[in-house]
Amino acid sequence: MTVARPEAESFTGAVFTGADIPATAKRDRSGHAVAGDPDVLIRAADVADVQRAITFAAREGLSVVVRGAGTGLAGGAAAGAGTLVLDVSGLDRILELSAADELAVVEAGVPAATLDAAAARIGLRYAPDPASTAISTIGGNIATNAGGLRCVKYGVTGDSVLGLSVVLADGTLIHTGRRTAKGVAGLDLTSLFTGSEGTLGVIVSATVRLQPVPVRTVTVAAYFDDVETAAAATAEVLAARVRPAMLELLDADSLREAQDLLGHQGQEAGAFVVAQTDGFGADAEAAVVESCFARFTSRVSAEADPGAAENLLAVRRAALPALERHGRVLIEDIAVPRSRIAQATQRISAIARQYDSRIHTFGHAGDGNLHPIIVVPAHDPGAGERAQAAADEIFSTALELGGTITGEHGVGLLKRDWLARELGPDALRVQRVIRRAVDPGGLFNPGKVF
Amino acid sequence: MTVARPEAESFTGAVFTGADIPATAKRDRSGHAVAGDPDVLIRAADVADVQRAITFAAREGLSVVVRGAGTGLAGGAAAGAGTLVLDVSGLDRILELSAADELAVVEAGVPAATLDAAAARIGLRYAPDPASTAISTIGGNIATNAGGLRCVKYGVTGDSVLGLSVVLADGTLIHTGRRTAKGVAGLDLTSLFTGSEGTLGVIVSATVRLQPVPVRTVTVAAYFDDVETAAAATAEVLAARVRPAMLELLDADSLREAQDLLGHQGQEAGAFVVAQTDGFGADAEAAVVESCFARFTSRVSAEADPGAAENLLAVRRAALPALERHGRVLIEDIAVPRSRIAQATQRISAIARQYDSRIHTFGHAGDGNLHPIIVVPAHDPGAGERAQAAADEIFSTALELGGTITGEHGVGLLKRDWLARELGPDALRVQRVIRRAVDPGGLFNPGKVF
Repeated sequence: MTVARPEAESFTGAVFTGADIPATAKRDRSGHAVAGDPDVLIRAADVADVQRAITFAAREGLSVVVRGAGTGLAGGAAAGAGTLVLDVSGLDRILELSAADELAVVEAGVPAATLDAAAARIGLRYAPDPASTAISTIGGNIATNAGGLRCVKYGVTGDSVLGLSVVLADGTLIHTGRRTAKGVAGLDLTSLFTGSEGTLGVIVSATVRLQPVPVRTVTVAAYFDDVETAAAATAEVLAARVRPAMLELLDADSLREAQDLLGHQGQEAGAFVVAQTDGFGADAEAAVVESCFARFTSRVSAEADPGAAENLLAVRRAALPALERHGRVLIEDIAVPRSRIAQATQRISAIARQYDSRIHTFGHAGDGNLHPIIVVPAHDPGAGERAQAAADEIFSTALELGGTITGEHGVGLLKRDWLARELGPDALRVQRVIRRAVDPGGLFNPGKVF
Repeated sequence: MTVARPEAESFTGAVFTGADIPATAKRDRSGHAVAGDPDVLIRAADVADVQRAITFAAREGLSVVVRGAGTGLAGGAAAGAGTLVLDVSGLDRILELSAADELAVVEAGVPAATLDAAAARIGLRYAPDPASTAISTIGGNIATNAGGLRCVKYGVTGDSVLGLSVVLADGTLIHTGRRTAKGVAGLDLTSLFTGSEGTLGVIVSATVRLQPVPVRTVTVAAYFDDVETAAAATAEVLAARVRPAMLELLDADSLREAQDLLGHQGQEAGAFVVAQTDGFGADAEAAVVESCFARFTSRVSAEADPGAAENLLAVRRAALPALERHGRVLIEDIAVPRSRIAQATQRISAIARQYDSRIHTFGHAGDGNLHPIIVVPAHDPGAGERAQAAADEIFSTALELGGTITGEHGVGLLKRDWLARELGPDALRVQRVIRRAVDPGGLFNPGKVF
């Protein structure tokens, strides 16, 4: 197909075509690719550029793949032949910060951490904290309804989104939602676009809720003999009516690898849990967490000092990079009802044995959101195939335990075949009907999600 | 139009036609009516009844108006000629309660308070608490995305909904959402159906989040010289990083009327605020609330005793019944950014003078959600018309201050004309497109919302 070159002078941002398009523009952090190369890359400088790009793509018969920082983990931003890649990372202005109304209006390309830092200057924070917060954009966070460590108390990205500005397939700019804490005027389009993974429109800006920085934070860490005991201890915490701001779990191997990467003195254990409590009741809640943990292990410590707390958290944060040293990794992302966490991790261990794969699990115990990481060593030719089979078995297990194939990363390209199994044909049909109603020509991210 | 009589024997529940239909089945608590009388009333006993009713209505060319307890305040359940009223209050089973996963699966007709009481037996609670909680159904609460007093900390109804079972216009039963705390598989249909006011399908059951009963609750009440001072004091509380579980405001007249109804010794004041803090930090937070209030008034009191706290809250709860003694009332429901609360109440007072109407305002100061109550005395022939004009002016003011025409009651019949003004033509068009995609024949609640 020969595509007309978009007139560079009609865009405020940059236009690339053919071989000039950087290879990085065709995939996200999942590494997954689709056949061929994108035809056009437009780095939009403003909303008018987004509208022009959409009009151009529609006219030229190209589909539109939107990308921010490219940190997606499900192949949602993978772009192949016949696509226009629309990079919105240049829409990077914080348009408003209001302390009185505890909200911000931000363009889609603003990194979450940048927004959070700006909020901090008025005594507030942006609560959602995906692992990629330093680099991933708010637009991408919203498009995938990203999770993070603080979800257990503060909710996922969508819980902080009050309203959106979205460019539709016909180039129209619409505004959804509101600036108020509550509002029920009409269908909740804000939630519909949140998590739609680029299939309904281009999110160009958002009104997001900010929250006070907690007056105090306490971190409690504990080492357990095995994951079952750790899961039982975390259940005890929640049953004690504590609402931790964070409740993270690492299995034995993830712990060892993370400590090794950090050069820490290895605390051998079957599982590691790090919890945070915050707010006016942080100390009282931390004391309850400690006593719950102490019923299952003698190795518990609490830290109110931010530096020491950061060291405890660093272990959790190091788990993924530590495993990435051993080869390509499949970063899986299931969620199960919390009561099934121990069962899920046992099943994952069995799957690892069955498929002769190296799988380490860590994740958000407070939400039942587990990340089984399947390491694919470079020198093992059959490992990739075995890893994929193991991943399929893990998805199947998640559904069997009443869970979901994706807790926070999204469906994208990777889990498309699994979506039908989770939703069932009727619910999937309604999803497609809505997609077709909002984007009748299938302009946005075709082949993803559905 | 002559409508075939549905065969009573084909329904497990009760079937009424023509003059046998009770008059109460044609309106909700707003009192608003549409022309004519419904043709059929079916009191469904189970999901199969709901499916049969929909099939029957579609075949006979009737539209379907779903109702639960009929406590809606926007005319959403008003039913006139050409309609089949589908009463789902008989779907009243609690199908599951899980302490470990902190969730319940309930049928649509279960009253919110019944669910809450059942949750209490396993040490949990259902957090959303609309004023009608004792009588309104979960299905109706979800259909309107109902609010309540605890929203400021615990969110609106939708924040507690994990998944739904919905019967669509073709009779298909679909399941949306999940049982897990997090999940991003596909478009968020759960949020789309939540607040859709009966226009997309019939919610027959829901999986809802339960939460621990807070370990401790403290109530703080204060009397202020005027609403501006009270609003400033509540802003101070929020700026002090306190997250109250409740933060309610009454103006002078609402306070006086409520005290009068309760037979309390009248504490004259320009405004009354009642706050609650809860959880492990309840006492510390209450102390901050007290000291914030004390900067603006000397009349502050705190109560940790539940009985005394209940007396303080009773004043807030009595405000509406107290005003209803004086005639028909228009219960308005705007929300404004919190920084605009004082301005909104000033404007409402001016509107009352302008339209020679009696308007008293109380509401959820923590959310900026205000309920201006317009009293229409029975003996004043022009009062109804003036009240409507005043209401229109109040909606206009809400939008002008960056707010919404409805914080928690919904659009229904009453605010349909205002929806376009709030959303703008393009966003409204997208709403209609989605409605048409999900319910192509316009079977459900035509003439409402859009």
